[in-house]
Amino acid sequence: MSKFPERLLAGYQTFMTGRYTAERARYRQLAETGQEPHTLVIACCDSRAAPETIFDCGPGELFVVRNVANLMPPYEPDGNYHSTSAALEFAVQALKIRNILVMGHGRCGGIAASLDPAAKPLSPGDFIGQWISLLKPAAEKIQESSLMTGSERQTAMERISIRNSISNLRTFPCVKILEDKGKLEIHGAWFDISSGELWVMDKDSGDFVRPEVEVA
Amino acid sequence: MSKFPERLLAGYQTFMTGRYTAERARYRQLAETGQEPHTLVIACCDSRAAPETIFDCGPGELFVVRNVANLMPPYEPDGNYHSTSAALEFAVQALKIRNILVMGHGRCGGIAASLDPAAKPLSPGDFIGQWISLLKPAAEKIQESSLMTGSERQTAMERISIRNSISNLRTFPCVKILEDKGKLEIHGAWFDISSGELWVMDKDSGDFVRPEVEVA
Amino acid sequence: MSKFPERLLAGYQTFMTGRYTAERARYRQLAETGQEPHTLVIACCDSRAAPETIFDCGPGELFVVRNVANLMPPYEPDGNYHSTSAALEFAVQALKIRNILVMGHGRCGGIAASLDPAAKPLSPGDFIGQWISLLKPAAEKIQESSLMTGSERQTAMERISIRNSISNLRTFPCVKILEDKGKLEIHGAWFDISSGELWVMDKDSGDFVRPEVEVA
Amino acid sequence: MSKFPERLLAGYQTFMTGRYTAERARYRQLAETGQEPHTLVIACCDSRAAPETIFDCGPGELFVVRNVANLMPPYEPDGNYHSTSAALEFAVQALKIRNILVMGHGRCGGIAASLDPAAKPLSPGDFIGQWISLLKPAAEKIQESSLMTGSERQTAMERISIRNSISNLRTFPCVKILEDKGKLEIHGAWFDISSGELWVMDKDSGDFVRPEVEVA
Repeated sequence: MSKFPERLLAGYQTFMTGRYTAERARYRQLAETGQEPHTLVIACCDSRAAPETIFDCGPGELFVVRNVANLMPPYEPDGNYHSTSAALEFAVQALKIRNILVMGHGRCGGIAASLDPAAKPLSPGDFIGQWISLLKPAAEKIQESSLMTGSERQTAMERISIRNSISNLRTFPCVKILEDKGKLEIHGAWFDISSGELWVMDKDSGDFVRPEVEVA
Repeated sequence: MSKFPERLLAGYQTFMTGRYTAERARYRQLAETGQEPHTLVIACCDSRAAPETIFDCGPGELFVVRNVANLMPPYEPDGNYHSTSAALEFAVQALKIRNILVMGHGRCGGIAASLDPAAKPLSPGDFIGQWISLLKPAAEKIQESSLMTGSERQTAMERISIRNSISNLRTFPCVKILEDKGKLEIHGAWFDISSGELWVMDKDSGDFVRPEVEVA
Repeated sequence: MSKFPERLLAGYQTFMTGRYTAERARYRQLAETGQEPHTLVIACCDSRAAPETIFDCGPGELFVVRNVANLMPPYEPDGNYHSTSAALEFAVQALKIRNILVMGHGRCGGIAASLDPAAKPLSPGDFIGQWISLLKPAAEKIQESSLMTGSERQTAMERISIRNSISNLRTFPCVKILEDKGKLEIHGAWFDISSGELWVMDKDSGDFVRPEVEVA
Repeated sequence: MSKFPERLLAGYQTFMTGRYTAERARYRQLAETGQEPHTLVIACCDSRAAPETIFDCGPGELFVVRNVANLMPPYEPDGNYHSTSAALEFAVQALKIRNILVMGHGRCGGIAASLDPAAKPLSPGDFIGQWISLLKPAAEKIQESSLMTGSERQTAMERISIRNSISNLRTFPCVKILEDKGKLEIHGAWFDISSGELWVMDKDSGDFVRPEVEVA
């Protein structure tokens, strides 16, 4: 019978002897008082784009929902289950979170799939196809930008998608109301997994710019 | 207009001067060759239970989907979008991942909600209510265990839910086929956010036990 | 004709040359003045769960009654002989003991027997069956928890039984009166015979938690 | 609200850093394989007469039932609950124990109560009175031995009681059958809590003698 992966046990041991030992009091406190994260991050499942790593955040800081291509679907109270909407509702209404960050990244496989007109279903259920269809109108437009290279279309779509998700966030009444009252701020960012660069979205123009940060 | 959170910029700076600098070659490589994570982790959004932290994993290792209460819904190819199912499909069929870990944790707010018969919708959309209803039959049974304390029911439900999600994984044909062929292994774990202890699921009995790990 | 077991004689020799020699004055004193133990412990006969060992207590400290599954029956002044009730009466009324500890443990054979619907009498007298029937109502409820594994039901029942015994203690008028006056304290604990961990009962919630104890 | 006794937590800490650490492998093994104690000891609750201490026995060795005055009642399959009989049945039939030791001791409060014609009930339930009445016929006889001092009657009764309990053991069919087949041995001992001396019962005569043991 298969055993628990050695890599994970070894990593857990490192965590316990290192980080956990150093932050033991904090873990106990968080267990007792409950979590009060400052930011909800909507990020991608991609193994190269973990928010806790990129933002060097510790336990208790980030409430993180991760799905393929870090998409926020629009508000659809239709009685079906919507996991990302549920996470948003919990963060905003129960945890009273003050910041939402939609974080995309370069070389996103989900975005690449949205731009591939020949993409075939990965399985009969075609879950990725259905999920990515949230981007369909935008993706179809970008596919027509034949003067841009494949990579330029990819990067453009990644950023368009972030802006799209931010618009979708505002279709949720609780989000809109709290944002208008100044109790909630929405941010966007895009992480270049190759160079490690973080590009932050300017809220007026929607442009992605590099912030003034001392990194060397 | 509001600015990008200082805490995140400061954390990003620490990341760049520290980890990224140390792993620069790895990030570049991963960007070029693409990701080959060894494990798909289905984890909770909870700010105290990030898999990369707990398993001390670096870029490229873990493909992580995070939702409230780390639930894996059952296979439902009904044409609606299912974000967790999409992530699973992508991991198994596109990334050819070899391990799936369903990781739950103590003091889970989503599990607590499932056990609260008086829980009111957090918003008119009641997305959490719908999402958590995936646990409804089991939660109703556990609610009747009046001889157990509230905490005991909570822990029991957290573990029952992990076993339930693992069963749901096996309703996906691609998962079942690959597991039977020995090409995919499914694991369960439960993280005690207070003590830092990791409990690993025994595949025969479904019990959660502590592995032999030297942590001091 | 059979001889006294060698193992016991050898152990006695070790006791005499070691502990007794070191505590000789104490043994003599206790013989002269009589015993004034600080705690009555209701423990199991199990060879792996001796209170003196677990609490490193010496002569004169613990008044210990041990029966199968560390049960305290309810108050029944019916003229029959009740050995555990007699020990309780002696400890509280004659020795004026100030603390009562009900101590259960993991892997308890008596508790396992209570959860086994197919358990057959061990002898025509079926003394275990009768004794364990003190747990019958609770055991029947727990047996129905089919979503829990066998081990989870076992641990749950061990703890429910401790809480049940503590309730039974309070059906004894002398216990209730003294506790209400602040002259008697009742405690619960559960010992994990595998890991050596001691879990102490929280008096408000009835939960079993690990106390802050430096053990390494 | 009262806290768990400090003395017990401190003792537990000593146990964990000392004995448990040294015997960790043994505790784990015993948890996995189950207990196989070599001796059932019927001992007194008295805080000065713990079998594990006197025989320097570790986890897994002794299955211990302790009641006031280490009495073994006679076989009474009447449908009531009998805790000492249940422990005996479990030890002999389930654990297949090979040795039974009835261990009495000097200055036994329960024996003293049996010899006190003026003893009043300690509480309306008079559980001690009922329990000790198992010794009534013998105690009444000894009370008449006016030529012996109080202490001599006490010691005499303690030893008579051990022989009486051994006779009662033999009223249990399972015990008698196994003893006759040579699969079970019955022993008696009496511990002088003042001098630390162990007196062992000669099986032919019933006398208590000191065995040849090097104790200095």
